[in-house]
Amino acid sequence: KQIVILPGDGIGKEIMDAAVRVLQAIAENFNHQFTFSEHLIGGAAIDGEQSPLPETTIHACKKADAVLLGAVGGEKWDALPGDKRPEKGLLGIRKELGLFANLRPIKAFTPLLHASPLKEEIVAGSNILIVRELTGGLYFGEPKKRIPEENAVVDTLYYTRTEIEQIVDKAFQTARTRKKRVTSVDKANVLESSRMWREVVEEKSKQYPDIAVDHLLVDAAAMKLITNPKQFDVIVTENMFGDILSDEASVLTGSLGMLPSASVRTDGVGLYEPVHGSAPDIAGKGIANPLGMILSASSMLRQSFGMEQEADEIEYAVETTLEQGYHTPDLSIKNGTVVGTKQMTEIILGNLA
Amino acid sequence: KQIVILPGDGIGKEIMDAAVRVLQAIAENFNHQFTFSEHLIGGAAIDGEQSPLPETTIHACKKADAVLLGAVGGEKWDALPGDKRPEKGLLGIRKELGLFANLRPIKAFTPLLHASPLKEEIVAGSNILIVRELTGGLYFGEPKKRIPEENAVVDTLYYTRTEIEQIVDKAFQTARTRKKRVTSVDKANVLESSRMWREVVEEKSKQYPDIAVDHLLVDAAAMKLITNPKQFDVIVTENMFGDILSDEASVLTGSLGMLPSASVRTDGVGLYEPVHGSAPDIAGKGIANPLGMILSASSMLRQSFGMEQEADEIEYAVETTLEQGYHTPDLSIKNGTVVGTKQMTEIILGNLA
Ligand SMILES: CC(C)[C@H](C(=O)O)[C@@H](O)C(=O)O
Ligand SMILES: CC(C)[C@H](C(=O)O)[C@@H](O)C(=O)O
Repeated sequence: KQIVILPGDGIGKEIMDAAVRVLQAIAENFNHQFTFSEHLIGGAAIDGEQSPLPETTIHACKKADAVLLGAVGGEKWDALPGDKRPEKGLLGIRKELGLFANLRPIKAFTPLLHASPLKEEIVAGSNILIVRELTGGLYFGEPKKRIPEENAVVDTLYYTRTEIEQIVDKAFQTARTRKKRVTSVDKANVLESSRMWREVVEEKSKQYPDIAVDHLLVDAAAMKLITNPKQFDVIVTENMFGDILSDEASVLTGSLGMLPSASVRTDGVGLYEPVHGSAPDIAGKGIANPLGMILSASSMLRQSFGMEQEADEIEYAVETTLEQGYHTPDLSIKNGTVVGTKQMTEIILGNLA
Repeated sequence: KQIVILPGDGIGKEIMDAAVRVLQAIAENFNHQFTFSEHLIGGAAIDGEQSPLPETTIHACKKADAVLLGAVGGEKWDALPGDKRPEKGLLGIRKELGLFANLRPIKAFTPLLHASPLKEEIVAGSNILIVRELTGGLYFGEPKKRIPEENAVVDTLYYTRTEIEQIVDKAFQTARTRKKRVTSVDKANVLESSRMWREVVEEKSKQYPDIAVDHLLVDAAAMKLITNPKQFDVIVTENMFGDILSDEASVLTGSLGMLPSASVRTDGVGLYEPVHGSAPDIAGKGIANPLGMILSASSMLRQSFGMEQEADEIEYAVETTLEQGYHTPDLSIKNGTVVGTKQMTEIILGNLA
């Protein structure tokens, strides 16, 4: 299997090293061949090649079976114009690879729960999967520009019906492997695109009679994620709503540093990255939490390579490690032991069967 | 003072009755003349006049000094097409009156805090004002339609620079009466409109050197409202982000039923409504919480009529009532007494000086 690794900026390099070591151990244990080729993206690519997404990176990713991404961005590049910024690399690679579905699982890890901002009884047992449309909507619609004659500005929320069908299908399919409930989030009382979205969900739901469906307005969803996160199984929504709601959801369980994310298309190719950012303030200090990256790698094994057992093994090692009380400084475990990135990685490797 | 009252749907009528009684008591105590004229909006107007916003209602509101609104909407009208729905009445009246600024205060009431989904230490002391742009952006931009040739759909996020300046000004001015901090929320790494928004905030901030400003991406804001709500004073943002974030924020303190909202323009005319909805499930049962509506009326006295002392008196009566332990069934107070809408109103009247 050909894996492209894009460490990116900030703590990206440290956590990527950790994930690669774990994957190498898995390759050995299960007799797989993983080859890794490293490329530039984001700020690192701006510094090295004057572009947040160099052609060589795009080319390598297109040939790969899967891509692992650390994180992009940092203050250093914040003053650059829109199309020269590190984030453009991320948006660009999603679009170039056609990764239309972003899967963001949010699961309560019991040892970490007490650090949640929510009361434990509200959040315990939550297990949500947000399925976010990733290559359409306000992010990419044209026109997206200044209108000097009107001293105005415009962005465009555009979807084809096919794009909506595609992501809604993905949500229903994924719900089949879970609790068989889909909540579709839109703003149908205001947006025409949401009204089409709702129609598509209703239509598609006939093909999935085993899946229960409901609709929620985005403002109500933002409330219910906090007041009753346990009510959700799969949430499906458009790009911008998905960006906001998945980040909102990511802090509910007190374990942001643990959360993986997968951006996929229908043929199994995918890009896997942790939810947390590049954290430039702690970069190079050896204290970054590698678990979000390691769990992203495990998600890659499961979703792009169909290696269920291998993925299970990594997840089991992570859970065992937390139960043993080991955690990096961004997390909190009662009577736990704080360790750095390298030590954490060693412990995970030790906990692999 | 001419006040138009629009009870609307669901519990709208019950809570409006309560607010009018409180205003009448204030008028007597302070020797004011308030005249009330009632009109139809939302579902009630659809049933009565085949339009969610009849001309007579628009006309009356335009002549009024202020408007009080109960709530609109309900399942009964959910199947109607987009432009015939109750919400169109609300969107229409905001636009007709040019109410470009929606002010949503979120304040922790100590007796209610234990019912917050958040841990008390996280939320106690929070006091946020969300200033949401209300007449532009995705809500009103054109085109907003199906594109049959492309089997696609489009909504448009359009702002003139003047519209942005206007709302940013309002936020800075309001921050002067508070803790002098403004957090501007945008998605400048993706939206061109957000990049213009950020420029305007930077420019305007020079005219308000006494106000501290920072910028936050909307996804990060959705996280920080939960992890550290106390860090915020005034938040200013565009229409759709404001819709999502203000509803998210409204559940933090465990007192959604208490929250007022004001939609204003520069000359003092405004529309005041509680944040909670029309709650058709409890309509007519006499158990609706009138406090959000009563506090909206007090906000009208303060913001449209400049009646500070009168507004203070209502707020004081509400706080006293909660401290005495009285609350409607939607709230929870330790060792409190559950009362209905009418009884709650009597107690508030009794607690007015
Ligand atoms: C960096 C940014 C452009 C990106 C997005 O908004 O998609 C990020 O917030 C994410 O969610 O992956
Ligand atoms: C009813 C709806 C159109 C409205 C909005 O989105 O503005 C409501 O959610 C609000 O926030 O007042």
